Amino acid sequence: MKHGRIYHNGAIVPVTEENGRVRLASGRLLDEKTLQWLPPVEPGSVFALGLNYADHAAELSFKAPDKPLVFLKGANAFTGHRCITRRPADVTYMHYECELAVVIGKEAKNISRKDAYDYVAGYTIANDYAFRDYLENYYRPNLRVKNRDHCTPLGPWLVDRQDIPDPMKLSLCTYINGEKTQQGSTSDMVFDIPALIVYLSEFMTLSPGDIILTGTPTGIADTQPGDEIITEIEGIGQLINTVVDDKTWYASN
Amino acid sequence: MKHGRIYHNGAIVPVTEENGRVRLASGRLLDEKTLQWLPPVEPGSVFALGLNYADHAAELSFKAPDKPLVFLKGANAFTGHRCITRRPADVTYMHYECELAVVIGKEAKNISRKDAYDYVAGYTIANDYAFRDYLENYYRPNLRVKNRDHCTPLGPWLVDRQDIPDPMKLSLCTYINGEKTQQGSTSDMVFDIPALIVYLSEFMTLSPGDIILTGTPTGIADTQPGDEIITEIEGIGQLINTVVDDKTWYASN
Repeated sequence: MKHGRIYHNGAIVPVTEENGRVRLASGRLLDEKTLQWLPPVEPGSVFALGLNYADHAAELSFKAPDKPLVFLKGANAFTGHRCITRRPADVTYMHYECELAVVIGKEAKNISRKDAYDYVAGYTIANDYAFRDYLENYYRPNLRVKNRDHCTPLGPWLVDRQDIPDPMKLSLCTYINGEKTQQGSTSDMVFDIPALIVYLSEFMTLSPGDIILTGTPTGIADTQPGDEIITEIEGIGQLINTVVDDKTWYASN
Repeated sequence: MKHGRIYHNGAIVPVTEENGRVRLASGRLLDEKTLQWLPPVEPGSVFALGLNYADHAAELSFKAPDKPLVFLKGANAFTGHRCITRRPADVTYMHYECELAVVIGKEAKNISRKDAYDYVAGYTIANDYAFRDYLENYYRPNLRVKNRDHCTPLGPWLVDRQDIPDPMKLSLCTYINGEKTQQGSTSDMVFDIPALIVYLSEFMTLSPGDIILTGTPTGIADTQPGDEIITEIEGIGQLINTVVDDKTWYASN
């Protein structure tokens, strides 16, 4: 089943998917294009992977890391399907990153590889935009690169784990204004989903609602105000976001 | 006024300080040594500074950064006053870091230097332990260094901003088993509190409950299981933590 959350009549309302339409608990069906979407879960701790596809690391002229390169994202960084993300006027390069997002379903500590999937509630899509200008120095702080207000669309649907038999064989694509600019497969991850759960749960506890953004394949490209960016993952859906300039952003924030 | 939170009779209970004792809302006074403490606020997004005291950067053989070096900490990383923190058997170096923690009191976006303190609710103490072994490679991931379960004691008291006339002139000390091993002053910060609020709020929104851990001065030292570590900040109080080995940790977790 696919689960989402929308803002509807003054409340945060859970919805499900039914034949391409959005179903309220009452059974009423709505058109997804007309809704005010939220991320499908309230994000807990969000762990994001850097350079977790070997081809993407090569694209950035980096060697793939020998340990997962994980950073945290804060609660303010997320936004819903069909929402807007700001491209600040002073950046020269803002690229999309289509990523499989793994949502944790129960407390996980010291998990073995064979049990790892038991701790997954399901999967959704993230567009983990990067503002590359800010990766400027030796210390490589990524806060300004990856943690701006509403810079990470998430959703629209959380798809139950049971409905994705093999999450390590999904194609990922990104489209800028309808033109496909990124194509990859989760099979190319350097550290796969069980490896990431083993790694993280060895030194800390993962909790329900925590999310792992598993990295992006090769094919990143700059985005400009007015661009519609669709990040798509096989079996999960399409996440749509529009890049806007400062003026448009501040007019609505 | 000083505000804290304790676990008491099955509930999370707010307390205040009165002449060195702990006051329940009923007026009953308790001994702080006997209580089960929580961090004084439920942490929102927690921003931690690396190398924010020039002398500490020199101690680690680094040049002080020219922009704030900020990383995020996750919700699982915190623990209360008089609680325990694990030293894993496989690390060779775990040092304390006494830090002034700035708690945000209201939504802050694009804040100017002159208004910065208006957005501060108050101050508390953090011991931002570092497991240095894990700073191992070029990418400098700090997740395993700074985000283990319960690795960051916080508290005991949140002291109202109004009660700390000049937070940039406070002495900080750390004691290992009663011996003073760290002594510094917040006046030596590379980026002071207003500068950090200006920096962060320029590209994201700070929310009530968000916390800025402002870095530690020179004088770090290794800690061993059984050590009692007291981190102390003038006008705020003493935060006490005991380092334990794996066996003791797993017996109580």
